[in-house]
Amino acid sequence: MADSDRRQRGLDVRKQLWGDGDAPNLADPLIEVTIDHLFGDIWTRPGLALRDRSLITCATLVALGKEAQLKVHLKGLLNQGVSHQEVEEMMIHLAHYAGWPCAVNGIRVAREVFKEMA
Amino acid sequence: MADSDRRQRGLDVRKQLWGDGDAPNLADPLIEVTIDHLFGDIWTRPGLALRDRSLITCATLVALGKEAQLKVHLKGLLNQGVSHQEVEEMMIHLAHYAGWPCAVNGIRVAREVFKEMA
Amino acid sequence: MADSDRRQRGLDVRKQLWGDGDAPNLADPLIEVTIDHLFGDIWTRPGLALRDRSLITCATLVALGKEAQLKVHLKGLLNQGVSHQEVEEMMIHLAHYAGWPCAVNGIRVAREVFKEMA
Amino acid sequence: MADSDRRQRGLDVRKQLWGDGDAPNLADPLIEVTIDHLFGDIWTRPGLALRDRSLITCATLVALGKEAQLKVHLKGLLNQGVSHQEVEEMMIHLAHYAGWPCAVNGIRVAREVFKEMA
Amino acid sequence: MADSDRRQRGLDVRKQLWGDGDAPNLADPLIEVTIDHLFGDIWTRPGLALRDRSLITCATLVALGKEAQLKVHLKGLLNQGVSHQEVEEMMIHLAHYAGWPCAVNGIRVAREVFKEMA
Amino acid sequence: MADSDRRQRGLDVRKQLWGDGDAPNLADPLIEVTIDHLFGDIWTRPGLALRDRSLITCATLVALGKEAQLKVHLKGLLNQGVSHQEVEEMMIHLAHYAGWPCAVNGIRVAREVFKEMA
Repeated sequence: MADSDRRQRGLDVRKQLWGDGDAPNLADPLIEVTIDHLFGDIWTRPGLALRDRSLITCATLVALGKEAQLKVHLKGLLNQGVSHQEVEEMMIHLAHYAGWPCAVNGIRVAREVFKEMA
Repeated sequence: MADSDRRQRGLDVRKQLWGDGDAPNLADPLIEVTIDHLFGDIWTRPGLALRDRSLITCATLVALGKEAQLKVHLKGLLNQGVSHQEVEEMMIHLAHYAGWPCAVNGIRVAREVFKEMA
Repeated sequence: MADSDRRQRGLDVRKQLWGDGDAPNLADPLIEVTIDHLFGDIWTRPGLALRDRSLITCATLVALGKEAQLKVHLKGLLNQGVSHQEVEEMMIHLAHYAGWPCAVNGIRVAREVFKEMA
Repeated sequence: MADSDRRQRGLDVRKQLWGDGDAPNLADPLIEVTIDHLFGDIWTRPGLALRDRSLITCATLVALGKEAQLKVHLKGLLNQGVSHQEVEEMMIHLAHYAGWPCAVNGIRVAREVFKEMA
Repeated sequence: MADSDRRQRGLDVRKQLWGDGDAPNLADPLIEVTIDHLFGDIWTRPGLALRDRSLITCATLVALGKEAQLKVHLKGLLNQGVSHQEVEEMMIHLAHYAGWPCAVNGIRVAREVFKEMA
Repeated sequence: MADSDRRQRGLDVRKQLWGDGDAPNLADPLIEVTIDHLFGDIWTRPGLALRDRSLITCATLVALGKEAQLKVHLKGLLNQGVSHQEVEEMMIHLAHYAGWPCAVNGIRVAREVFKEMA
């Protein structure tokens, strides 16, 4: 695949997840790899729906306690049509697999997102 | 909810995920809490589909590197109709969020499961 | 056990750990599960003293780096009669099993708690 | 403190935890640091009982999923007079703070220890 | 960069780290991404020496407790000219930042590697 | 080794990493152990260069997500002559082994350090 195709596909996924917004700073090498490879090559692979990619990304971020990234990806998940109730249930469910603190922190982040997107 | 209802709902979820099998040893207190509370109270909550509960459980187990439990829950996930390709894509995707080793170990476990269920 | 008994036992444990305080918001489903199941069913199980449950909860929260929850549970631990010195020794000890950063962060949180409870 | 004192205190703690056994290979630098510093300097500090040091070490090893080390330290914990029931309750309790897989693996290791020490 | 260039650079890095060996199974999509992206795009980036990339990869694998991958990457590290003593010192050092169990397991893996490469 | 030697060597390492600064509060037992043992005994061991000790410490702190400690140790790493580019490459590299969120947080911390030291 030509590099320009990867770039465009990465920007398209980003738009599907979070809508129009500021252009990413592609002069930053980590952001460049994120757009070209992570979004352009990986998120666009066939075989797993975008909504499911969002869902497992959020579950992973809850389990790893990565709150800043969880906040971003929960917005993407809600933009795929996943409901507030589904997000809250995800946290209650994961309390039992990743431990209560991950869920307590996750539900706090989720409610911040609900407010910001209200 | 009466305790006998929780127990029955827990056993029903277990059957949906893994089919008929040996009866769980309910004299073991951790197994009792697992059937009555985790399966009976939590997995049966409305608001998140069983297939999605399976999916986020598997993602969490990949991220936390819990291979024995991943093996069990991948079987449940495949029994919900999720395909081999979706499972493999989940691992490639999560390589980028939980780190390459989680994905390499996860795909190895998945292929063991594919063989056992073939 | 009837649901009302679990609820009452959960509220009683909460009071033993943190004294009287605001009533928990039981309309929040994660809090409801916390009071009824985690406090009502688990913390009240016989076979392990409340003080030891507090102690291992705090050690786990240090190891997992969950500072907000550590703060809450350190208050409960001190309310069980564990001394400031025991808490500080716990951190120095765990530095060697969970890594220095967990202990440095843990001792910072502990000293915030010591001040708030002074 | 003279180096020979640290060494002796470390060997004494080791004996309290696990009884007489093979002499540690002090020509191995990691083992030397373990005996002299971790056992000799840290485990012997006043202000936290040996039994409590064992207990929080085991809780941490459950939370971090370090099964080989958990096996060793559970033996030390039982040798301090902690009961099988207390160990099993610790696992059920920690399931909720470190996640179910840590407890399931922990209780499996504990039962191996119970058998070996029977 | 053309895809064939990424592929070739990835295979070249692999050879530098582990010498000639079996050809990787590029029909496996995770291996394909590993060769083309992780080895071809990332390990070949200018600005950080191959030896340092190996070193920080090994430190990360020790900290995360990923023993199978640590074994592979320690071989690569030794092939960059890092000595057995440097590897053992890395483990003793990291005991203090990632916790003793990571170091104990890491040094065991390292000695297996030393034997296999002797 | 006499205790006063360990103390002096620990203070010397601290100075090499971070220059002159406030004297550490040696009445704080965790700081005392840090200076005497971690810096005095461990960081001064022969067999691994100070620059490499800094590098693997930073990699470990990225992987474990310990941002406060990463900030401190990145300053020490830059003071060993490691370049901004090497630090940024470390983060992009570790994104693939510890997961993207560790790298995103790590690069944010690094840029704060770059500014503070400019």
